[in-house]
Amino acid sequence: MAGAFAVAVAVGTALLSLPIAVAGPGRADLLTALFHATSAVCVTGLVTVDTGTYWSGFGQAVILLLIQAGGLGIMTLATLLAVVLSRRLGLRARLIAQAETKALSAADVRRVIRRVVLFSLGVEAVVAVVLGIRFATGYDQPLSSAAYSGVFHAVSAFNNAGFGLNADSLMQYVADPWISLTICVAVILGGLGFPVVFELVREWRTPKSWSVLTRITVIVTVVLLVGGTLLFLVAEGGNPGTLGPLGAGATLLAAFTAAVMPRTAGFNNLDIAAYQPETLLLTDALMFIGGGSAGTAGGIKVTTFGLLAYVLWAEMRGDPDVEVGRRRVPSTNQRQALAIALLGIGVVAVATFVMEALTDFSFDVVLFEVVSAFSTVGLSTGITADVPPAGQVLLVLLMYIGRIGPLTLASGLALRDRGRRHQLPEERTIVG
Amino acid sequence: MAGAFAVAVAVGTALLSLPIAVAGPGRADLLTALFHATSAVCVTGLVTVDTGTYWSGFGQAVILLLIQAGGLGIMTLATLLAVVLSRRLGLRARLIAQAETKALSAADVRRVIRRVVLFSLGVEAVVAVVLGIRFATGYDQPLSSAAYSGVFHAVSAFNNAGFGLNADSLMQYVADPWISLTICVAVILGGLGFPVVFELVREWRTPKSWSVLTRITVIVTVVLLVGGTLLFLVAEGGNPGTLGPLGAGATLLAAFTAAVMPRTAGFNNLDIAAYQPETLLLTDALMFIGGGSAGTAGGIKVTTFGLLAYVLWAEMRGDPDVEVGRRRVPSTNQRQALAIALLGIGVVAVATFVMEALTDFSFDVVLFEVVSAFSTVGLSTGITADVPPAGQVLLVLLMYIGRIGPLTLASGLALRDRGRRHQLPEERTIVG
Ligand SMILES: [K+]
Ligand SMILES: [K+]
Repeated sequence: MAGAFAVAVAVGTALLSLPIAVAGPGRADLLTALFHATSAVCVTGLVTVDTGTYWSGFGQAVILLLIQAGGLGIMTLATLLAVVLSRRLGLRARLIAQAETKALSAADVRRVIRRVVLFSLGVEAVVAVVLGIRFATGYDQPLSSAAYSGVFHAVSAFNNAGFGLNADSLMQYVADPWISLTICVAVILGGLGFPVVFELVREWRTPKSWSVLTRITVIVTVVLLVGGTLLFLVAEGGNPGTLGPLGAGATLLAAFTAAVMPRTAGFNNLDIAAYQPETLLLTDALMFIGGGSAGTAGGIKVTTFGLLAYVLWAEMRGDPDVEVGRRRVPSTNQRQALAIALLGIGVVAVATFVMEALTDFSFDVVLFEVVSAFSTVGLSTGITADVPPAGQVLLVLLMYIGRIGPLTLASGLALRDRGRRHQLPEERTIVG
Repeated sequence: MAGAFAVAVAVGTALLSLPIAVAGPGRADLLTALFHATSAVCVTGLVTVDTGTYWSGFGQAVILLLIQAGGLGIMTLATLLAVVLSRRLGLRARLIAQAETKALSAADVRRVIRRVVLFSLGVEAVVAVVLGIRFATGYDQPLSSAAYSGVFHAVSAFNNAGFGLNADSLMQYVADPWISLTICVAVILGGLGFPVVFELVREWRTPKSWSVLTRITVIVTVVLLVGGTLLFLVAEGGNPGTLGPLGAGATLLAAFTAAVMPRTAGFNNLDIAAYQPETLLLTDALMFIGGGSAGTAGGIKVTTFGLLAYVLWAEMRGDPDVEVGRRRVPSTNQRQALAIALLGIGVVAVATFVMEALTDFSFDVVLFEVVSAFSTVGLSTGITADVPPAGQVLLVLLMYIGRIGPLTLASGLALRDRGRRHQLPEERTIVG
């Protein structure tokens, strides 16, 4: 899998290095091409140049295709992993109509790919139409330009890529519910992940039958959206640089959108450079947690975060088992979540340390940039273009690790044979 | 236990509020008295006034007694917990010479207290003598002043309290190996914790026989001291505000001392306000991890950090069991470590968010102050006295939670009956 993504990045870098990829004279240098190819394939959205004016139509098309390939690739692979691993998920039976067995046939894989592609293109098409109509009717854009912008933003939103065509991302639409909410819906649908959406469509009336995957994903998503919106209102309500000048309805809309975007679409509807320090920290937390497990979002994933919260709750209550909706989650599964969260914290801490050593930026903006890259979010306080080349290479590595790391880890950890060897005598230590 | 510490804080606050506690006219206001009583009982060392000039001799004696009471209290309680919990630790047999049983007799408790007190006062006495001689001979202090300063710094160092009598903490002794290394030894011995020191004294020749507690504590302590020193050299080597002006030997001494102090003594030998941002982050990490489990250090403890590292390693290798030195650590024990680390991260994140909302300080110094209070370290970039009253109350809460929280959690989690109920069907989720 890591190989497929590396090949996509290499092809993208080559294409973006062509003279026809840029709008002006000359060509993009290698680091610029590599940076934006990685950012597109890893659906991150960090940029050092303005997408709408630096790249030509050809360059923008390459970026859009890389986003679509990266998004479809990760969703397909993660869904296949879910099918292989699920004991009860119902995905095997429902998705590939086959008895319980570890092996996937080529026909199974084709069926999953077909459904993922249909789902992706279907949502993108509807979103593109809504956005295109709004761009044409609300902003007096010529029809072709409105349609192009609609498609671009729809693909970018559903794949949680966060690339936009305007230099200010979505800031000019901050008070426009048609555009903001449509993009939010696309972001959330893509970020929930295919298996969860598939299960929700069929069983939304019977939450008691939901799998552990769907239950945790839905609960954590709702908590983060509601809690994030409220904390945004508290932290930024009186800030003249962000929510301050807006009316009541627009404030609520903007706070909700600002809580959706870190998980992990990466469009910005507000000026992040004007955020309060506590809002940057809140956004760091939302970005690090990220979105659903088998979707286009990044981060350690809401399932990892949610499962750890269930473990903590069980530990504090003194329950020997961790139970999610009348199901017991095995301890091996808990340990996977722990491993993914700890490695994520470790990568972010080391990268922040290195980036601080490479640059003179303050700690808050560096941490924000590192978390944004690792969680493939693409939000920035505006320093990306000013990061020195070594730092940009570090961001490229972070985007790549952040995109393929957790899934590789989860599959490697999960698919492994767990035969029990001769057991050693048991001994505990004191902790805390 | 929480009650005993609260009583000590209340008594200390009352005593420090007396007019005779301050050197100048008037008296300390309630918040100042509460802050410093908490800082002393919780062996933190954060101060808003200069200990050597603001408090009278009486006030300094109160602070010293509160430090000693807080340090002895936590070490005794944690050692008793270790005795109760240890299955193999050898502590029962060696410390209280009794068969394996959950109950502790009054005689057992007295024996543990006596040994902890002897250990503490013994180390403090030797350290006080060495420091006193050096203050008298190397710095021309009168004998009485040198002796007082020696005792004060010895008690403060062994109990990882970090209170000093000089306004610059230990910065004037940065190149003095007699003082720096003596204090480092006291800090490390107090921070290892009594059970580990007890086992090391008896079995230092046979590492294979060490308990899991001692093995993890020693390994992580060595790794953090060596790694911390090297990273300090890398990050601060060329900084004219810190290591820059020192010679080679003094640079190494200063880097080592600077790596010892965040875990969690809190003296500073260098000007923290002049640290590079990456050094602040490194210090944050060292502070958060803290020291040994049944000693005077704070933080989540090296055992918690080390056990999680072992869990991660086992997970990445695919081992079903977590093995430390030919012993298997039960999954309940792993889950305790996870709970303590996650709650620590949660407390620090929430407190940082609140402190950012209360003040205008930048993110790096606020995070540093919060971690320093939670981990009862006492290092500061210098903002403590400028934090508004609500923020100082938050720091008081953090010191208190940081001091009694992890141990309460560990004992509560560990002593609890873990009867297994009817088991639900098992189901896993995808993470990452
Ligand atoms: K993104
Ligand atoms: K301290």
